[in-house]
Formats: sequence, structure tokens, C-alpha cells
Amino acid sequence: MAEIVTADPGEELLSNGFTRIQQEVDSLFDALMPIPQDSRARLFEAMRYAAIGGGKRVRPLLLASTAEMYGVSREAAVRAGCAVEAIHVYSLIHDDLPCMDDDDLRHGKPTLHKAFDEATAVLAGDSLHALAFEILASTETSSDPFTRSELIATLGRASGMHGMAGGQMMDMAADSEDYDLHSITRLQQLKTGALLAASVEMGAILGHVPPEGRGHLRNYARDIGLAFQIADDLLDVEGDESKTGKALRKDEVQGKQTFVTLMGVEQAREQARALVDQAIGHLANHGEDARMLRALARFIVERDR
Amino acid sequence: MAEIVTADPGEELLSNGFTRIQQEVDSLFDALMPIPQDSRARLFEAMRYAAIGGGKRVRPLLLASTAEMYGVSREAAVRAGCAVEAIHVYSLIHDDLPCMDDDDLRHGKPTLHKAFDEATAVLAGDSLHALAFEILASTETSSDPFTRSELIATLGRASGMHGMAGGQMMDMAADSEDYDLHSITRLQQLKTGALLAASVEMGAILGHVPPEGRGHLRNYARDIGLAFQIADDLLDVEGDESKTGKALRKDEVQGKQTFVTLMGVEQAREQARALVDQAIGHLANHGEDARMLRALARFIVERDR
Repeated sequence: MAEIVTADPGEELLSNGFTRIQQEVDSLFDALMPIPQDSRARLFEAMRYAAIGGGKRVRPLLLASTAEMYGVSREAAVRAGCAVEAIHVYSLIHDDLPCMDDDDLRHGKPTLHKAFDEATAVLAGDSLHALAFEILASTETSSDPFTRSELIATLGRASGMHGMAGGQMMDMAADSEDYDLHSITRLQQLKTGALLAASVEMGAILGHVPPEGRGHLRNYARDIGLAFQIADDLLDVEGDESKTGKALRKDEVQGKQTFVTLMGVEQAREQARALVDQAIGHLANHGEDARMLRALARFIVERDR
Repeated sequence: MAEIVTADPGEELLSNGFTRIQQEVDSLFDALMPIPQDSRARLFEAMRYAAIGGGKRVRPLLLASTAEMYGVSREAAVRAGCAVEAIHVYSLIHDDLPCMDDDDLRHGKPTLHKAFDEATAVLAGDSLHALAFEILASTETSSDPFTRSELIATLGRASGMHGMAGGQMMDMAADSEDYDLHSITRLQQLKTGALLAASVEMGAILGHVPPEGRGHLRNYARDIGLAFQIADDLLDVEGDESKTGKALRKDEVQGKQTFVTLMGVEQAREQARALVDQAIGHLANHGEDARMLRALARFIVERDR
């Protein structure tokens, strides 16, 4: 009798979901950044180098999966997903700069300032930053101006000084300050959590879900955001660089406080799993329509890259 | 008999206009960036260092003066003006970085990366970039979501790869490429012209002027944009660093092609004046309501800083 392998249905769903969104995001970025016939060509090549291929596209998948629950057109969801991803990619480019984290490797290839040069990396990041808002302001993302404005306000808050950029600033100060668990949680809610939460929120905005109907989604997003960062800290300690495609063991070398240094490996892992269970609990009033969000929550702590 | 000094009425109008908008912009930036009680404080201090005080505020004055012709509330115009200025300030911070133009002086004081550090300068620029779109997306800028979306689309186009960032990329390539007058014009239309044009356009958008009614304003903006850059090139050759508050004679040292190297000082000055006359000509159908835009056009070629 042949061995029967029962594939986890959530795993196949997720794998198909990632493959589909990765193709869609790459294809839209390709269409949005045709290389011009002038001396800006190098800038566009740099933007494409950083933006096309390589990324997991967790944020676009979160956005599209939320949007799908509310019957949003796939095209609108992918466009908004690309806007969030453009912000994510720009932040990685700037974070990798020599004056910031000084990283040489990203997605298994040289970082942008290594492959091109620092000035091009600063500008390519700035251009992707602007592109995110250009995408959202376009009538192709939503014909409804109120929705467009709400998408932009949400992404602007999540990426600026009260979100991702503020979190990155706290992170840089972390080298000299001794953060406790409360401060680390706050830092990570800004640095990583804000953009993940915006992805879920923007899916709901596209679906015309009013703010008072988004509470459970915000709770879901807050929990997976923290779990995501704890998983990242665990990966830094236990991960395989050939899979993550970026340098690991950096926290230890820099003597940085993380969830893992503050809680220990075992408790951190337990905490991440508890957060994922809690996140999935917030989706209790959803049925099969939320299966991708549930699978994504599990993926976030079980990933190896 | 005492000597009678006849003040140029346009000059007084302009001087009052600048004083008023400078106070309004500084005051709104101050309100938008209160220093938080956490480790982001240094980032906010850096943003405030770069954004508050020092700038001429040509773009906010252009925007507010256009908006005033169409009966826009002063508050809405100043908010939109601050959004454009936030983009301008962020671009100066990043352009001054060592990997870009490597400048030590701006508005007569040390550039941001000199006063703070490079990482803070990158992040403060990024945060001001995001702030611009946050301001425009806020319902305080306009209660009408269509207007908000149009403002954001206009500023996004003007600042991104098809505007300012694209122009900066062409400018960096200018060190190695021999640009002719046509290429320099195109470069400057992107690098400087796009944001000046967006300022005028956004004033008209706030005034609910439909696109087909903005043709003369676009022509005005295009002409003053070019005149502005020619004047900048002339200042680089003939200006006084104690007035400009930034390093001059850089084009010559870097062997860069500019309007002045390509046309000579006399022809460049003549060209700038002709452009200003032409710009003012586009306002022929306006009466006294356009007096500030006319005065601004003249200021642009006559300024010494």
C-alpha cells in the first residue's frame, strides 16, 4: 500500500495565494516602471531591481485577502497592494544604506546601494515612496474619491513619523538605549506593525467597511504584527541565511534588545504562537472567507524566511 | 528738501506676502510636529530643524496667491502650501547628503546631516515626504474628497520619478554626460519646474478650477520655472554666499553644464527676463487679483538669494 500524504489544505491555499500575488505585483510594478529613453534610465533600473522579484509580498497578500472578503475587485486590491509594497521596498532600500543598517544582502542578492550606488539608492527609495501615493491617488485604484483619500491617509499615517519612520528612529536609538519589553513592543508596533495593520485596514477600506466595522480586523492585524516581529527576532537567532537571503545574527553582534533577548527563545516562540491563536480568534465571526487570513497568521510564525 | 523715495508698490506687496506666508508655514509646521516624549524626539527635532525657519517659501506663496484668486480659504491654502514645502524641504535634505551633492551649508546654517547625522537626515527626509501626503489626505485641507485626491495626484506626479526625483537623477548623470540646451531644459523642468508648477496647479485645484481652465496658469508656471532655474545658475556664478546661505561656484568646480555655461551670463539674464515677461503675459485676463503672481514672477529673476 502506498503511503498516503495528507497535504495541509491551508498550506496549499497559502502557497497558491503567494504565487498568485507575487506574479500580480511583479507584473504591475513592471507596467508602472517602463525604462525611459533618457538619463533617468539608471534610476528606473534601480527601482525595478529593488521592487520586482524577490519579495514575499506578505503585505499585498494581507490586503488582497481582506479585500476579497468584502467583494473588492482583484485589480483594485492588487493596485493598493502594490502601493503598500512600494512603501515596504523603499523602507528596505533606505534601511540597508551604509549610514543606517549597512546591509550588503537582501533577498539573496546585493542590496541596491551595492548593486548601483548610494545616491541612486536614496533616489530610488524616494521615487518608490512617491510612487505609492501616485498609485493610490489614481482613479484606477478606486473610482470613488473618498475611498482614495482614506487609503492615502491610512498609508501616510502608517509610513511616516507616527508609523514606520518613527519606529525606525526608535530602532536606531535602541543601540544606545536599554529598552524594556514595553518599549520594544511600542517600537515594533510602529516599525513593522503599522504597515501590516495598514494593509489589512486598506483592504477593508476598499470594501467600504466603515471604521466601526473594522475593530476585529485591527485586533487581528495588531496581533499578527507583533507575532511577525517576534518570528523575525527568532529567525535572526535560529534562521538559515541561505533561506532568508539576508544577514542574520545581527542583533547579537550589535548587542540589541529584542523580544528574544528579553524573553528567551522558548518563551518568545510560545508568545508568538499565542498571538497567532488570538489573531485567529478575532476572525471568529468570519467563515470560509477568512481562511487566507487564518493561513497567513499561521505562516507568520512558522516561516523560515 | 528731503529726498523722496518712491517704494515700488509690487516690492512692498511681495515683502508683506513673504512675511505673512513664512509665519503661517512656520506656525503650521510647528503645530504638525510636536516633539514626542519617546526616543523619536531626535527625529522630530531634526525635522523641525530643517523645516521651520530659513526657507523663502516661494512654493507656498505661489500656491496661496493662486488660491486667493479663486476665493479659497487661507487655512486650506496654507495647509496645501505646507505639503508642497514639506516635499521641497525633504528633497533639500536628501540632495545635501554626502552621497548626493555633499553640501555643508543650507539657509546659512549647517545642513541636517552635519547638525545631526546621516541616518537621521535620511529618516527626517522620509518623514517629511510622508507628512506631505498626510497633510493633503487630511479632511482639514479640504472637506471635498475629490479635491484631496486631485491634490495628492498632482503632488505625487510632481515629486516622483516623472518629476523632481527624476530630474535629480538626470542632474547627477549631468556630471558625466554632456547635456545640450534641450536636455538641460528638460532636466530643470523636472527637477525644479515640476514642483513650482504643482504649487500653482494645486492653488487652482483648491479653487475648483477645472483642468481646461488652468491652461494659462500652467503656461505661467512653466515660464517662471525655467526663469527660476536660470536665475539660480546666475546666482551660482554671481551671487553672494552671505545672502544665499549656501555654497556657490559649484557648477564651475564640477564642470557642470548649466544655462549660464551654455548661453553665457548676458544671454541667460536676457532669457530669464523674457520668460518672466512671457509668464506675466499669460495672466493678461486677470486683473488686480493676479498682482502677487506678477510680483512673484519678477522677484524670481531679481532675487539675490
